[in-house]
Amino acid sequence: MKYSDKILNTPSSFIRNILKVTDVPDVISFAGGLPNPISFPIEELQSSINHAVEENGAKLFQYSTTEGYLPLRQYIADKYKKDYGLHFEPDDILITTGSQQALQLISQVLLNKGEGIVMEEPGYLGAIQAFSLAEPQFYSVTLEEDGLDAQQLDRTLAANNNIKFIYTVPNFQNPTGISYSKEKREAVYEVVNKYDVVLIEDDPYGELRWNGEKLPYIGAGKLENSVLLGSFSKIVTPGMRLGYVVTKNKELMHHINTVKQATDLHTNIFSQMILHEYLVNNDLGSHVKKIINLYETQANAMLNAMAKYFPSSVKYTKPDGGMFIWVTLEEGTSALEFFEKAMEVKVAFVPGDPFYTDKTNVNTLRLNYTNSSPEIIEEGIKRLGKILYSLSAEKQIV
Amino acid sequence: MKYSDKILNTPSSFIRNILKVTDVPDVISFAGGLPNPISFPIEELQSSINHAVEENGAKLFQYSTTEGYLPLRQYIADKYKKDYGLHFEPDDILITTGSQQALQLISQVLLNKGEGIVMEEPGYLGAIQAFSLAEPQFYSVTLEEDGLDAQQLDRTLAANNNIKFIYTVPNFQNPTGISYSKEKREAVYEVVNKYDVVLIEDDPYGELRWNGEKLPYIGAGKLENSVLLGSFSKIVTPGMRLGYVVTKNKELMHHINTVKQATDLHTNIFSQMILHEYLVNNDLGSHVKKIINLYETQANAMLNAMAKYFPSSVKYTKPDGGMFIWVTLEEGTSALEFFEKAMEVKVAFVPGDPFYTDKTNVNTLRLNYTNSSPEIIEEGIKRLGKILYSLSAEKQIV
Repeated sequence: MKYSDKILNTPSSFIRNILKVTDVPDVISFAGGLPNPISFPIEELQSSINHAVEENGAKLFQYSTTEGYLPLRQYIADKYKKDYGLHFEPDDILITTGSQQALQLISQVLLNKGEGIVMEEPGYLGAIQAFSLAEPQFYSVTLEEDGLDAQQLDRTLAANNNIKFIYTVPNFQNPTGISYSKEKREAVYEVVNKYDVVLIEDDPYGELRWNGEKLPYIGAGKLENSVLLGSFSKIVTPGMRLGYVVTKNKELMHHINTVKQATDLHTNIFSQMILHEYLVNNDLGSHVKKIINLYETQANAMLNAMAKYFPSSVKYTKPDGGMFIWVTLEEGTSALEFFEKAMEVKVAFVPGDPFYTDKTNVNTLRLNYTNSSPEIIEEGIKRLGKILYSLSAEKQIV
Repeated sequence: MKYSDKILNTPSSFIRNILKVTDVPDVISFAGGLPNPISFPIEELQSSINHAVEENGAKLFQYSTTEGYLPLRQYIADKYKKDYGLHFEPDDILITTGSQQALQLISQVLLNKGEGIVMEEPGYLGAIQAFSLAEPQFYSVTLEEDGLDAQQLDRTLAANNNIKFIYTVPNFQNPTGISYSKEKREAVYEVVNKYDVVLIEDDPYGELRWNGEKLPYIGAGKLENSVLLGSFSKIVTPGMRLGYVVTKNKELMHHINTVKQATDLHTNIFSQMILHEYLVNNDLGSHVKKIINLYETQANAMLNAMAKYFPSSVKYTKPDGGMFIWVTLEEGTSALEFFEKAMEVKVAFVPGDPFYTDKTNVNTLRLNYTNSSPEIIEEGIKRLGKILYSLSAEKQIV
């Protein structure tokens, strides 16, 4: 039997295979991107379930609309107004099966085979996978310490008029933890505004900030072809798979709605109603504050341990929020080789390879700190440090 | 801004537009395909929620595996063994966001642009929409009163070696309510077995049988490239969007898993765990029996009213289960025109057009009886009958 080119060209599920290897009880795993389970508001969600059933009865269990539960879309619109002063209507919002699904929907709507996508380099591997199904041409633009290289973006867009959209994660990017500076946001806006392209801002981590000020989006509320993606996975629960796409472009939204309907009719309405009940009856802000405090402690534990145990030749990002640290090893060191040695001492992470569309055997890797205690983090980093010294010319000072 | 060819070629959401027109309080709607809300086991599901939270805690709310919740897949495997004597392992089963999603996943895995799909004529419009995103060539094979025309299927497969799969709904088909006879199943099996194609059997309605015996599947358990789709939407709840795909072809399942991950990572685990808790702690059989009794009464109410109020020139199917009756008007009568007149007297149905890949302005239409009381059904059919007589040469005998 023959399979489609698109499935054969979709990157093999590198991270799935890694998670399988690493998902054994005594492995210290910095590999996944899982929220800390102690951050789920389980009791509050449970009482929300009972309220939702009392209030909505059979409606929780029936087919529903493709665009999603209206009161939830209204809540999201109100939240953007409160948090960012952005004016969205519920009609500008469609609820998706996690924001991952939004990536797949948008690429189906916009791309013919061979058309272009600008990706941050390195970029979110789940986006690379979702987009690959549309058989695109990927164009990488360097992600600098303060965001996408605006000049390189301009040159890339100027040279390739097959580019349909630019995919960015402006806050605490996956995999690097990097956030775009205010200046970089403005510079990228100025570039994008010159071209007939869509700007996607995927923002699952934006609320998880412990340092600095919330910044305005690059294009949301300003660019005609702006698409903003959000998610409840990192601030309430990922298990319910509830994300959303926001755009004021009516025609684009109409097409997204059509693909959404063809794909799964609508998002789980039972979960949408429960989430909405939770959101309107609880103080989300103070819940998120708890998660932030937890992750800040864990991030600091990791950064302190890295300062203590890693050779000085190893560079890494120091995020102001989010879930990840990005590590750059000495030139020529293979992250894949490091991964194999790390697994021997039962520590896991994601080697950088799957975060690039056109590079392999790189010297970078992603560490996650949200799902381990500070003690475990210290122990895991200590083990990694020992290997790194053995791979390096530097002597470990014990 | 330019959109993809596939979105521009995906049939406009005919049924969505119809449901919008018809979703007003005083319209009698035979248009949707909604289960009767009194069939949802709300109280049982509610106690299942509490049990599931007690037993699984944070696991309900965390990210989960792409293939789906193992105990739920085990339950499904066991059920096929009990009901059909079919031997499936949990690894042969992947949980999808409704069985609608399975259609989209499979077409992504199998089809390059322009490759072929055999559709029943008339066929499920949601499948036509899902498949359209892969830009296929559709080949229609006539759905006879007892299933697909096997000779025509053979000729079609012989003449077109670009065909990758055949899509069938063997039990109480949508839109016709037709079930394949035992002989027709065998004849179709014999044909399909000669070719290197996948046979999809989509079976959301199979359990809703009030007349006759459950029949073996066409290819499931026998054909190497068999794919079976199932759903909990019609027997427990559609709101949770829980369906599944079953195949013993390991390579095919591997690719389906990759697309599933790229599309939405995994199906809502919160709902999977609650459903599983419901299934193992309640008597599903007796619950389904209640739904069957309800729908049989409603179907009979509709058939009796049609016998009473429709001109004898109007033909229609008499289903042994499921949710739909298919009506064929006199040659030359436009179902779309009939729809407009019906809406004037506040009765809705779905004109046949969207169930064909290459016909318009047809003389067929779909009636749903599961979501109206027998009294409302009689009143709606009476109003339709009056219009049909006015369109026909026959005189109404009052």
